[in-house]
Order: sequence, then C-alpha cells, then structure tokens
Amino acid sequence: MDEFERVVAAVDERVTPDAAERERLAAVAERVVERAETAIADLPVAADVVQVGSTARGTWLAGDRDIDVFVRFPPDLSRADLEAYGLQVGRAAVPDGREEYAEHPYIKGRVEGFDVDCVPCYRVPTAPDIQSAVDRTPFHNAYLLDRIDDDLAREVRLAKAFLKGVGAYGSDLRTKGFSGYLTELLVVEYGGFRQLLAAAADWHPPVELDPEGHATRDHDDPLVVVDPTDPDRNVAAVCSARNVARLTHYAREFLAAPDESAFEPRAADPLTESEVRDHLDRRGTHPVAVRFDAPDVVEDQLYPQLEKSLAGVVGALDRNGFDVLRADAWAAPDAAADANGDPSDATWGDAVLFCECAVVERPRIERHDGPPVDVGEHATGFYDAYADDGETYGPFLDGGRYVVERERPYRTARDLLESALFEVRLGVGVERSLREGYDVLVGEECVTLVDAFGGQLAAYFDPRP
Amino acid sequence: MDEFERVVAAVDERVTPDAAERERLAAVAERVVERAETAIADLPVAADVVQVGSTARGTWLAGDRDIDVFVRFPPDLSRADLEAYGLQVGRAAVPDGREEYAEHPYIKGRVEGFDVDCVPCYRVPTAPDIQSAVDRTPFHNAYLLDRIDDDLAREVRLAKAFLKGVGAYGSDLRTKGFSGYLTELLVVEYGGFRQLLAAAADWHPPVELDPEGHATRDHDDPLVVVDPTDPDRNVAAVCSARNVARLTHYAREFLAAPDESAFEPRAADPLTESEVRDHLDRRGTHPVAVRFDAPDVVEDQLYPQLEKSLAGVVGALDRNGFDVLRADAWAAPDAAADANGDPSDATWGDAVLFCECAVVERPRIERHDGPPVDVGEHATGFYDAYADDGETYGPFLDGGRYVVERERPYRTARDLLESALFEVRLGVGVERSLREGYDVLVGEECVTLVDAFGGQLAAYFDPRP
Repeated sequence: MDEFERVVAAVDERVTPDAAERERLAAVAERVVERAETAIADLPVAADVVQVGSTARGTWLAGDRDIDVFVRFPPDLSRADLEAYGLQVGRAAVPDGREEYAEHPYIKGRVEGFDVDCVPCYRVPTAPDIQSAVDRTPFHNAYLLDRIDDDLAREVRLAKAFLKGVGAYGSDLRTKGFSGYLTELLVVEYGGFRQLLAAAADWHPPVELDPEGHATRDHDDPLVVVDPTDPDRNVAAVCSARNVARLTHYAREFLAAPDESAFEPRAADPLTESEVRDHLDRRGTHPVAVRFDAPDVVEDQLYPQLEKSLAGVVGALDRNGFDVLRADAWAAPDAAADANGDPSDATWGDAVLFCECAVVERPRIERHDGPPVDVGEHATGFYDAYADDGETYGPFLDGGRYVVERERPYRTARDLLESALFEVRLGVGVERSLREGYDVLVGEECVTLVDAFGGQLAAYFDPRP
Repeated sequence: MDEFERVVAAVDERVTPDAAERERLAAVAERVVERAETAIADLPVAADVVQVGSTARGTWLAGDRDIDVFVRFPPDLSRADLEAYGLQVGRAAVPDGREEYAEHPYIKGRVEGFDVDCVPCYRVPTAPDIQSAVDRTPFHNAYLLDRIDDDLAREVRLAKAFLKGVGAYGSDLRTKGFSGYLTELLVVEYGGFRQLLAAAADWHPPVELDPEGHATRDHDDPLVVVDPTDPDRNVAAVCSARNVARLTHYAREFLAAPDESAFEPRAADPLTESEVRDHLDRRGTHPVAVRFDAPDVVEDQLYPQLEKSLAGVVGALDRNGFDVLRADAWAAPDAAADANGDPSDATWGDAVLFCECAVVERPRIERHDGPPVDVGEHATGFYDAYADDGETYGPFLDGGRYVVERERPYRTARDLLESALFEVRLGVGVERSLREGYDVLVGEECVTLVDAFGGQLAAYFDPRP
C-alpha cells in the first residue's frame, strides 16, 4: 500500500457511514416511501415514489444523511394539482414537516433523526422533456445507480470529501463548485478518485467530457460535463474557473505529497482587531467598507447580489482612482436565529462590501479631456464654458485637443461611497437594504468588522488557492 | 475700416521696419555681398553670392534684422574644399565674425549693428538635388521673391507677428511651430493674413496644401505644405498638432474679437515660492522634480532630449502608480553667460524634469499575476517560489490564475527617482549630466524651483491654448 492508499484508507474510514447508520437510514427511508405510497392511493391520479440522492446510492458522507423522496405525477397533470397533491402526499410521508418553496412547494422535515425532503415532480419520458428542474433528478439517480457499485461508491465519497476539504464542493451560488451529481459523474467517467485527481492535475480548461457522446451544443465554461441524461446541458455550468483551477492545484499537491489534511475544510481562527491592524500596517493599504443589514433573501440570491454590488463599488472606486487591490463581500448569519436553532427563523445579520484600496486620497482636481479644437461649435462651446471659470485650470491644448483641470467630484473613497453609492450597479435586495441605511468604514475603523466577520477576514488576509 | 483692419493697421505700424532701417540694412547687405564677391575672385573655383531670408524679401519684423548671405559653389566641389573656401569667403565678408557649425561650418558676426550669417552651399540644379540642407535655401528664396510684393510682404509680417504673439512661431525643436518659410508660403497660398486666419479657423487636420500640385508622397503630419521647390518634402513637418490647433484657436478668437494683445507674446510674471505653494494646495497634487545641470548641447538637441527624458520618467511614475497629472521640462540659461553678454559663452544652467503626481504613496505590496494553473511546470514553479515566502500574501487563485501580493519595489515617487532613474529611457546628454549628480525634490521642496524657473512655473500653473 503506497502513501496515497494509506492516507485515503484513513479518510475512507472516517467518511464511510457505519453499518448502524446505513441500516437505520434504510429503514427510515422505507417507512417514508411506504407512507407516501399509501397517501397516493387516496388520490384521483396515479403516481409513484422514488428515493433519490446520495443516500439512495450509498454515496453519502457519514453524517450528511438527507433522505430525498420524489413523488412522480403524470406529465399532463396541471401545475396547481401537482402542487396540491404533492403537499398532501408530503404531509403524510413527513408528518412533522413544513412547507418549503423551490421551483414549487415541497415538504421538508425530520423523521427519526433524519432530514427528509418529499418533492413532487412530473414523470416525463426523458430528461429533456422536463417541465420543472426537479423532474430531472430521477433520471440522474437512475443513471448513477446503474453505474455505481459499492467500490465506486467509496471512490465517490473520497472525491466528495476531498472537494469539501479544498473548498470546492457545492453548486450553491456562493461556492460555485462541484455538485454531488457532477462529482459522481466525474468519478464514474475517470473510474475512481485517484484517476480523477490524476486527470484533474493535468486539466487544461476548457475541459470537455461527454460520457454519452451526445452533446448537441457548445458551452462557454471552463469545465463541461455533458449531462448523460440531457445532451443540451452542462452539468458543470455553475463551476467557476477558480474552482476548476483549485481542483487542479490541490490534486497536484496531494498526488505529490498525500496528506490527510487536504480533506479537512480550512477553518481559520477569527482575527482580532489588532491582528487586522497588523495586516493593514504590513500591507500599507487603505480599506473601505460598506456595512449594512443583509437583505432577507435566500443564500443563492444573496451571494450573487453581493457580488454584483461589490463589482459595482469596485468599478466606481477604480474609475475614481482609488485603485482597489482586492475586495470581498460577506454576510453574517443572524446571531439570534442561530441561537434559537430554528432554521425557519434564520435571516441574515450584517453584510459588508470590503474593498482594500491602494490610494487613499486624490488631488482636488482631475484632468478632463475636451473635444479636438477642429470640431467647430462643440469645441468653441467647450472652450467658452471653461475659459472664464476661475476654479478651472485651462483650457489648454494637448495635441489638437482642449483639456481642462477641474475640481474632482470625490477626493476620497469615503466621499464617493457616502455621496454616490446609488449610482453604481447594485443587487436589487442589496440596494433596498442600503437605502434603509449603511455605514462607511474607512482605514482603522474597519478593524471593528472582526465582530461579525473575523473568520472571513482571517481567510482574506491569508489567501490560499 | 472694420475692427479687424483697425487692429491690424496698428500692429502693422509697429512691426514694419521704417525707411531708415530698411536703407541701412540694404547698404550693409550690399557691402557684405561685395566683400564676399571680392574674396571669391581669389579662389580657384567659381562661386556666386545670393542674399536670402526675410531681409532679402522685405518680410522681416522691425528689429529682427539678420542678414543671410549664401555663397554657392559648384556641386562637384569636395566637402573639404567647400568648407575651406566657404570660411575664407565668410571671414572676408564678415571681418569680425566667428566660426559656427550647423551642417557645416559658416561665419557669423556683426556688421555695423546687424547680425550677419555667411553660409557656403552647393549650387545644385534643383532643390531635390541638394547635397546639404542649406542648399535648399536659395530655391526657397527665389520662389518667394517671385510671389511676394510689398502688399503681400505686409501680410507676411502680420502673420509672423501673430504667430509670435500666440507662441507658435519658430521651427526650432523647442517650439515646433511655424517657420518663416512656412508662414510666407501660407500667406502666399491663402492670399493674405486675414484669409490665412479665416482658413485656419476652419482647419480640420490633417490639412494638406500643395501649391505646385506636385506631391510625390504622403505625410503623416497634422499640417502638410508640400515644398513648391521639392515635391518630396513637407515644409510643416516639424509643426506639432498643438501648434496647428493653437493657430486654429487663436484665429477664431481674433476673428471674433480682434485685439492687439493677440500679437503680444505672453510673458507671465515669475511665480514666488508662496504662489507655487498656493497652487499646489489648491490643486492637492504632489510634485516631484529631478533637478540637474543641463548638458552643454545646443537648444535643438537639448529640448528633444529633455522631452525624451521626461517621457521616460513620466512613464515610470505612471507604471508604478504615481499617476502623473501633468509634467514639463525646462532648462535655464546660464546666469553667468547671460551676464557677460557673450553668446559664444552661453551654456545652460539648471534643467528640471517637473512632474505633478496625483498619488504620493503606494501600499507596501502590489498584486503580481502569475501563470494560469494549467501551464504545468511554469505554474508549479511559480507556486513553489512563493508558497513558503512569509513576506508574500498568497499564492491564491483569481479565475484560473495564480496571484500573489508581494512587496513593491518603490513606495514613493522619491524612492523610484532616487533608485531607478537610469532604468528609464533618457536623452543621451541628459543621462550623462544626471550621472554627474541630481537632486530629487518632492512636494514642498519644489517651491525652490522658482529661483531658476519662476516664469516657466507661472506658465505651467496658468495653462492656455
């Protein structure tokens, strides 16, 4: 057994659910399915029940044991009936469940210690016929069930654990990493975890895989894995260039020197105020932050909105000469909701757009290029507008063009963020929250961000692949 | 008489040499020519003498009365003989003259209060046959003599006086403006001073004139006036886009509101230290200056070298993030040489490269982009080089690329100019002088520049077209 296998065996030990967990889970899943089938018998339409997801395929990581049960209705059923019957079956299957909403309503709850989702969908003939995104899941499940035996399930668990460890696991819009389905497809395609790492270590994006050889279109993504159940779809569409590169990087590192720590998600100790101060001194930069109440939207809406807003702010800072070195945006979970432990109550606490500027202050004036002298009335109009303005230097000529040096609108990043924040492109919920009020923190003031974002600041000031 | 004519008549009165000046000049010129012809009679070759320049054509401005006498030798004469015979004739024609050197040696001196140049050249059949640049002058002279009568000579004087007034007269490499020959051609071409202004007010560069309709090539210049005596040559090649635009600007201004002040060269009062300080406060900028002994070269070499050096310094400041708002370079005449009044002794005093920066200080670190992760050994080499460097932040990933934040070489403009001045492109004589030593002045220290450059700073801080 080489070092790779030795390390992997230890990880496998840790992440493989034990027999007791597997048995209990199978029993609970069976009960949920039975209760759903019983409820279906009372409906005026036919439907069947299928267990899907990693717990249906034996590929879940010890502890991550969500049971997913899909109830499939005929494709000609109206949307309204699907929703009504789906909730009815779900309530029967998960008696203590509550209604949640994704593409349509479903029931979520706990059954004997397991989290269970009971989701209605249409039983369409093939995946490309889907009427709703969830209709695709049973096809994915069937495809993988046919291909993943117990040996390969172990490889899938290792791959998931590795991607979690390096921070690239999850297709949520904050992570933009590898989904469970994508991970399982990659392991099937390459034939194992070690083979996946060996391949990824040598990936040259765009990387294109098409297990069924049936792609019908091109995708402009760094990683393309054509869905075996839907030739039009890239399973890796959400996976960012950074996460593709991250897998390549850590695959190389691990193959060169296998180490169990690669499977441990990084958890940096939150920074203290004085540690943030030390970093800023050492870097000689000028941080500015916009702190506000995070809008009450789900995470998959919040992070894209934070990113869009951050890009807007960074663009404005750069255009005004404050030269952003690096920036990031974070939201903190609401402390109260966390404390009472009821996830249905979970809203966000503070959010922050954090920008580290290279330049703290600009001159009072800025150069403003006017028209070429030869463009007639436009040129004379420009000249006349500034010629008698005692606040302006010029107009003078640079080459064939009029130029003035006139007062800048914003001398500092604070001026800009206090006066013109709503002129930049912002996410809609973020903008709504900002209009309720926000704080601009500059320089030294930013150290107080450690109260809500000490962990994020620790990662920010110790950036890794 | 309209306002234009009234103003112009007053100027004409001032710039037209009076009868006494014209008669004295004609008498002196005749004497010089005769002495030259007498000296030629002693030579073993044939030669003739021709008076050229504005004083030969009646287009000089009162007081600007240089007499130019050219001695034309056969084109098959050797260069050495041309130089020897030329100096011999020149010394006879200008007994108190001294030897000067342009493309070849000539004699310059004073004769009865007039400055006289006696220049040898080849008598070639046509201007395109020239063997030396000065051979062209007699062709220019003959062309203009045929076309400029007394009325048009008045128009030429007005045009020259106007271009002097607005700072666009002179084809030296500091001014890069309109030469006398160019000005005379433009007046001939447009038919008068007022017509020239009317045309220039509506110029749309590139402006192309070809009086003889014989152009043989294209020119990439804002103003093209094909030499009537040489179809290959653009008489306006040295004229900068700025000076072309300047004539357009001031032509419009003057036609709209004729005012004698347009003919008065601007002479700003030198600034005091406190006035410079006030400007810098008002502008909120950060000046840096490199002060050194100007190299001992002629003005037509010095200014191109200063410009090249300034461009090098500005480029380095910009590349390093100090963001130059505006810059200029100046040389002061040597005070001692000025005082004793002997121009042969005239060397330069201080020179300065003056740059007004928008940014005074940069962070300790800068972003440094590495290779994409997928480029194999180059990528792993980059990662390994920085991974264990405690001074560097990262490597981390941005998209698919490694990035580090590492120490900047220069945090301030002073650091840069004190440490890396010789890494920028400099004019050769300027570099030689800088290697003897230089001062870097920053911020407040720059106010001391008023001692040598008060007038230049006055113009700098009151920029006009």
